[in-house]
Amino acid sequence: MKIALAQINPVIGDFERNVSLISNNIHQAKAMGAELVVFPELSICGYPPQDFLEFSDFLHRCNQSVQHIADLCRGIAAIVGVPTLNPNIEGKNLYNSALLLHEGKIIGEAHKALLPTYDIFDEYRYFEPARHFNCVEYQGVRIALTVCEDIWDIEEDLLYTVSPLDELARQKPEIAINISASPFSYAQASARKKVVTHWAKKLGIPHVYVNHAGAQTELIFDGGSLVSDIEGKLVAELTYFREDLQLVDTQNLHSENFAEKADNKTEKIYEALVCGVRDYFSKLRFQKAVLGLSGGIDSALTAVLACDALGAENVHGLLMPSQYSSDHSVADAEQLARNLGMSYDIVPIKTVYGAFEHQLSPLFAGKQPDLTEENIQARIRGTLLMAYSNKFSHILLNTSNKSENAVGYGTLYGDMCGGLGVLGDVYKTEVYALSEFINRNGERIPKNSITKPPSAELRPDQKDSDSLPEYDALDAILYQYIEERKGPQEITDMGFDGSLVLRVLRMVNRAEFKRKQAAPILRVSPKAFGHGRRLPIVGKYLE
Amino acid sequence: MKIALAQINPVIGDFERNVSLISNNIHQAKAMGAELVVFPELSICGYPPQDFLEFSDFLHRCNQSVQHIADLCRGIAAIVGVPTLNPNIEGKNLYNSALLLHEGKIIGEAHKALLPTYDIFDEYRYFEPARHFNCVEYQGVRIALTVCEDIWDIEEDLLYTVSPLDELARQKPEIAINISASPFSYAQASARKKVVTHWAKKLGIPHVYVNHAGAQTELIFDGGSLVSDIEGKLVAELTYFREDLQLVDTQNLHSENFAEKADNKTEKIYEALVCGVRDYFSKLRFQKAVLGLSGGIDSALTAVLACDALGAENVHGLLMPSQYSSDHSVADAEQLARNLGMSYDIVPIKTVYGAFEHQLSPLFAGKQPDLTEENIQARIRGTLLMAYSNKFSHILLNTSNKSENAVGYGTLYGDMCGGLGVLGDVYKTEVYALSEFINRNGERIPKNSITKPPSAELRPDQKDSDSLPEYDALDAILYQYIEERKGPQEITDMGFDGSLVLRVLRMVNRAEFKRKQAAPILRVSPKAFGHGRRLPIVGKYLE
Repeated sequence: MKIALAQINPVIGDFERNVSLISNNIHQAKAMGAELVVFPELSICGYPPQDFLEFSDFLHRCNQSVQHIADLCRGIAAIVGVPTLNPNIEGKNLYNSALLLHEGKIIGEAHKALLPTYDIFDEYRYFEPARHFNCVEYQGVRIALTVCEDIWDIEEDLLYTVSPLDELARQKPEIAINISASPFSYAQASARKKVVTHWAKKLGIPHVYVNHAGAQTELIFDGGSLVSDIEGKLVAELTYFREDLQLVDTQNLHSENFAEKADNKTEKIYEALVCGVRDYFSKLRFQKAVLGLSGGIDSALTAVLACDALGAENVHGLLMPSQYSSDHSVADAEQLARNLGMSYDIVPIKTVYGAFEHQLSPLFAGKQPDLTEENIQARIRGTLLMAYSNKFSHILLNTSNKSENAVGYGTLYGDMCGGLGVLGDVYKTEVYALSEFINRNGERIPKNSITKPPSAELRPDQKDSDSLPEYDALDAILYQYIEERKGPQEITDMGFDGSLVLRVLRMVNRAEFKRKQAAPILRVSPKAFGHGRRLPIVGKYLE
Repeated sequence: MKIALAQINPVIGDFERNVSLISNNIHQAKAMGAELVVFPELSICGYPPQDFLEFSDFLHRCNQSVQHIADLCRGIAAIVGVPTLNPNIEGKNLYNSALLLHEGKIIGEAHKALLPTYDIFDEYRYFEPARHFNCVEYQGVRIALTVCEDIWDIEEDLLYTVSPLDELARQKPEIAINISASPFSYAQASARKKVVTHWAKKLGIPHVYVNHAGAQTELIFDGGSLVSDIEGKLVAELTYFREDLQLVDTQNLHSENFAEKADNKTEKIYEALVCGVRDYFSKLRFQKAVLGLSGGIDSALTAVLACDALGAENVHGLLMPSQYSSDHSVADAEQLARNLGMSYDIVPIKTVYGAFEHQLSPLFAGKQPDLTEENIQARIRGTLLMAYSNKFSHILLNTSNKSENAVGYGTLYGDMCGGLGVLGDVYKTEVYALSEFINRNGERIPKNSITKPPSAELRPDQKDSDSLPEYDALDAILYQYIEERKGPQEITDMGFDGSLVLRVLRMVNRAEFKRKQAAPILRVSPKAFGHGRRLPIVGKYLE
């Protein structure tokens, strides 16, 4: 069967646009000679629709769109993803479905059975799992049609009590097709290949896997749709982070000339972040970004990513030196802006800070300076950036990294301001790796920004290392706690100093109240702060 | 059987404290003559433990605590709630369990079968549902032991495909016991009574229901534990919003003299909010609150709630008039502070605002004043409040109401600052009702704060009604959209103006980015902003 993989980028709830996008792909696929064109999971409404699924109006629009698309399927069939109503009284009201459309009709359907409800996923919140399994049939060919998670039950510690493809295998399918909305993390592409090829080989049939490409706020869907031959060898791998449309003939798959795309962790993270920024702006219908440039590495890297995503002409920097800023801070930031070709303004904060000091002096009489004064400076900067954002309709990009977010080394309503946290899932040590990658063909980020010791410059001669462990040790402990979910004893047993481990874990837990009010963070790791990591604010575990 | 209902208030993850609390209640119950003492759902670790459940260290401490408590059960048995390991390879790793402890041993267990995964609940994220149902036995008595949601399947549109108490009924239990962590909303107590009595009557056995009392950030568990006799008549109703311990003898239940506690919506919301503020502070080990007093009704009501929760001596107000503040704003705020006996300072913002204006004037040259200038003033106030909070270790209380949060009528990092949103689930019209309730025995909130037209006072002669529909109409539309999840056509069909409906719904959807960075909100309605309402930031539904 000639199958087109339509790796598209829907907008959540924009039915008009999504139907038009699907329509265009159906026409193109037909022109390419496809008999069937396959779209990603929930492609009609966009993924994740979240609580919009609780509105019957939203579901009604999904239905209308399905009918519209079915009418377009003349001389070709399409598989689309859409929520459908569960006709049973018992159980949740909806299924997460793949529908096979042809000649104006729904001629086949499959409901998702494995509903990911962990990390960033909430699918059992909305959907009833399928309990019956039947192949769909098209042109006399039995197709094992599944949705995303349905194929991911190949690990030893099984999350589910049923295996959809094992059930479907009893009906002797001739092709397997999976429609997905599988978000990027740096570990995901290789895991995905393993899963797709595992089932092709196990069932001895071709496996076609179509993913969503594009970002939805925090979640970056990286595309990379796949086709495996009956031996479990890959024969097609679509573009990453961009829409794509490719045709395969399942009767005629050749793995000999196939070469997997390179999978370099740092490069993939770079591409993911650029995609994340680009789509956040385009889907909110904004063109322009503003960010604070401190002369440090985090804001420099964020500026590069913004320029690469939006064009340097759409990125503006504010340099906001304080009385504690070093001479080179402004120089480094200006050098960066020149390197990138982006515009900037310099707005010193000393006068405004003086006004705050003056106004608060009766209240603070007799009190020593402490973090309060540092926070005021950070909040003045936040207010200036937001003023620029408001006045010129720029979205403020947040430049905090994952290490800072983890331990709460940042000022709420100050440097934590912003519409999108670009580096919030990137540890400081990874910020360095990305910066080296950025500079691989010549200096874009000034060398001095990379080599100088990190500092918030909010008091004289301040260094991050005054308040924090060295980033190498800090990031290693954070990784064990956050990504690997190891407890204090386990981490200490790995050779870290026990008191340091406890200190770091306490900092992480105590900063939960800050993270609850942080900007949404582009997710590039298997465990990012935000919707995928949910912890109580009040509580006293490891505190 | 003589059963003590131990309605306790655990701290999430504070095993030492929770075990000590449970231990004290066991001793007291024994002294009262109880044969069995029953604690709420997940009472050992606190509810909701959220992703702490993914840490084996956390689970290990749960286990240790169980063993410790079992050892205390000499001459008495206890039922406690705790996560336990699912021994099967398939499915999630944990059960949400009720354990029956006696003489140092676990002599019975029941796992939760119905896992609420909607609104604020995420239980299938962590737990495998029970699929087998067996009564536990104690002193030769068969007990149908269930956990919270297990008894809530009495509606027509069933969320689940199994009914635990119908299953257990086959084994002819003699008593039913349910352990719960059932959060407050103004509609919950009556629904709870219906469910508890429904099963008592249906099974013809006494039904003992023990709830958690106390707040965990957004969630306020209202206690109100219940006992029903075999005819479905209530015989006991424990205190609301406070810990309680009461003994019943299931052989000897009398409904004749039982009088249900009053269930006045406004009064319950008042009590819930006081409980929410009190526990937020005590569980974070803070004593003192600061808030901005504008002279308006929202900050006045918040101040009252704070004083009632923490004591007026622990609440401080900042009055921060701008050049656009009316004369009576400061006077009304001062009157409030005098009425309540709380301290305050006056910090005008004009000088700081002038410094911002001066600093930004080169950038804003040729631009007209707009929302930017209003936001700067709100952010100056946010910065002043946070400076006070930082310097004196006060938690800043946020005073935004639900109507404002809904339509985005508030400044991010400005009046949206704060550690806890006290009124964030209270519509403006309900703010008025609460204020009248507060003043029922005399003026605490100055009358002028109640009667004057709402205004942000950020530009000359500004009124809320310049930007927003009148609150009566606005709140009615918001209620249909947020609580009832009705779409634009459905709401219009109820008699609202169609263009107004669309305007309001668009405002709500477009403000999602602000709410993502809002303070946690005390939940008092069936659908509050925050963790229980999850919507995409990028998306174009109804925009």
